Amino acid sequence: MNLFELDTPRLVVDLDRLERNVDEMASVAREHHVRLRPHTKTHKIPEFAHMQLSAGAAGITVAKLGEAEVMADSGIDDILVAYPLWGTEKLERLRALRERARILVSLDSFEVGEGIARVGREQRRDVEVYLEVDTGHHRMGVSPGDEARLLARRLSTLTGIAVTGLLTHAGHAYAAPLATRDQVVAREIQDLVMTRASCQADGLEITEISVGSTPSARMESLEPGVTEVRPGTYICNDTAMVNLGVATLEQCAATILATVVGRPSPDRFVIDAGTKCFTSDGVGRSGWLHVVGRPDLTMEFITEEHGVGTIDRDAGHPLRIGDTLQIIPSHVCPVFNLFDVVTTYRGTTVEGELRVAGRGKVR
Amino acid sequence: MNLFELDTPRLVVDLDRLERNVDEMASVAREHHVRLRPHTKTHKIPEFAHMQLSAGAAGITVAKLGEAEVMADSGIDDILVAYPLWGTEKLERLRALRERARILVSLDSFEVGEGIARVGREQRRDVEVYLEVDTGHHRMGVSPGDEARLLARRLSTLTGIAVTGLLTHAGHAYAAPLATRDQVVAREIQDLVMTRASCQADGLEITEISVGSTPSARMESLEPGVTEVRPGTYICNDTAMVNLGVATLEQCAATILATVVGRPSPDRFVIDAGTKCFTSDGVGRSGWLHVVGRPDLTMEFITEEHGVGTIDRDAGHPLRIGDTLQIIPSHVCPVFNLFDVVTTYRGTTVEGELRVAGRGKVR
Repeated sequence: MNLFELDTPRLVVDLDRLERNVDEMASVAREHHVRLRPHTKTHKIPEFAHMQLSAGAAGITVAKLGEAEVMADSGIDDILVAYPLWGTEKLERLRALRERARILVSLDSFEVGEGIARVGREQRRDVEVYLEVDTGHHRMGVSPGDEARLLARRLSTLTGIAVTGLLTHAGHAYAAPLATRDQVVAREIQDLVMTRASCQADGLEITEISVGSTPSARMESLEPGVTEVRPGTYICNDTAMVNLGVATLEQCAATILATVVGRPSPDRFVIDAGTKCFTSDGVGRSGWLHVVGRPDLTMEFITEEHGVGTIDRDAGHPLRIGDTLQIIPSHVCPVFNLFDVVTTYRGTTVEGELRVAGRGKVR
Repeated sequence: MNLFELDTPRLVVDLDRLERNVDEMASVAREHHVRLRPHTKTHKIPEFAHMQLSAGAAGITVAKLGEAEVMADSGIDDILVAYPLWGTEKLERLRALRERARILVSLDSFEVGEGIARVGREQRRDVEVYLEVDTGHHRMGVSPGDEARLLARRLSTLTGIAVTGLLTHAGHAYAAPLATRDQVVAREIQDLVMTRASCQADGLEITEISVGSTPSARMESLEPGVTEVRPGTYICNDTAMVNLGVATLEQCAATILATVVGRPSPDRFVIDAGTKCFTSDGVGRSGWLHVVGRPDLTMEFITEEHGVGTIDRDAGHPLRIGDTLQIIPSHVCPVFNLFDVVTTYRGTTVEGELRVAGRGKVR
């Protein structure tokens, strides 16, 4: 079946492009001898995670236990839950997950460490944890250096837990212009390398330095000391990655297929996709949604079920009710979280559907 | 079970508040002799739609056929699909839905009317349609007056369709300050009443004037000529409605229950809920997320799985890892679309869970 004959709106994935993206990042990691542990929150689809592993990833990263469970169900047995786990229910689920997979977790507090250590003691096998360090994003994480070392020391007094790595997410690299991004990344890695040395001088052996986001992963792979990168978005990319200069429009693999359902005035059109397909991420940023192959069309605003755009009529291309448009979203990760299934294709031929098995796993 | 003992994050609904909201809007409509046809895209839960019908609503509004199907499955038999339906698959679903419920649809073009008329002819029973008029939101809709009359006339030449109403959504009323909102509403209704008169003078009998959004519904109910209002958000409200002056914080019935998972610095805290619970709607607007009962806590920014806030330490209230917070979202409608289930409660006692059966119905 032809892609453009499908009922819309719909999230569609170009498998050729996705495979190229998967291979390219795997090559970068391999060349620089860092472990690739892609963040699968971008797609939440076990089949895609297996493609990443086949290409060379050594394990995966997830944000939630619910995502880890879905991925473990598919046979994946090396998973970093990059999130502090708190509370009886979550710790019980961590215990169950550890019966069938290697599960690493991240944390930035002693309180969270105490709960996780109980799980390790019950199972008579240490839980491997990464200590989250704040390298400038100011979200989670202890400060590099002494503060991190002191927490690592306190955690080392707990039985059932082993701090094996330092982890950071340089979310602030997204805001850094291309010209200064390498400085942000260099500083990030220096902070972590220095913290690891400080821990080692204190008798705390920490082997892993785990970093990564799509905008920074290729730079981080070059930095001495990094052992693991965790990019996520690179598998599909989006206009945010294009605007950051780390992907081209041709490397964007996930798009929304939408239909023109209204032509209320000569220079305005309405499509059947709004925030329920695109989310509100990036709204207002120039070119936040890109209509593939139609430079004459500009998306102006979206509401839940409507996307409203304008036409450059001087271009002379018609646009009729019923026409199908293909649109690259601004931030692809939350888009996958809005769809129960994605349609896969090559060229313009539909291959099939995949369930977004990790969608909606809020806990 | 106590609400605050639940694992988080979680969407929770205060049934006492919800019932009061349902009753209040039903009273407004009853007093002013307008039909209430609430937009159920806000909650997407058949049980809540039945509460609205029991309180006096004469039917419901939905945005998508998938939502209509879910509501029809629950026995609701009077549904307005306030969206232009296009394409073979959707028209086939419209036909099937009409076998078990009264289905009205809206449109703003002759092209969409042609497809819908085919369904009416096949079933030998006219499809009732509302013609969408643009009263200032500039999303969909034909211009009031002559343009609307001419389209109504063209549509009247089609067999299988009957234009019975004029519909508008005054989305621009959301942006109007309270002081001028009544002028926006008055103008909206004048446009529609004038258009209906123009149609009538042309021999086109149009009986219904269908308007409504939560910010405008109470004003619209007062306006002569209006026959139907379609507010949605009023059932739960959100900080956007509070900021517009049409609800109080005490009338907000849907909140996110979240846990403090990080205290990375003395004046910063991190909760386990981000855009995957709140969406990005309203981000950056002052007070876009409201932490119930904790004026000392201000949400600063959110990413997919993290919410980051600051503490006014002068207030002297402690905040520890593991504490549960209850947070009113900025825009409640897309929040329901992120959750498979909601937890209901009265006081602080959990009543049960309801499935968000209409979640994710993009088509």
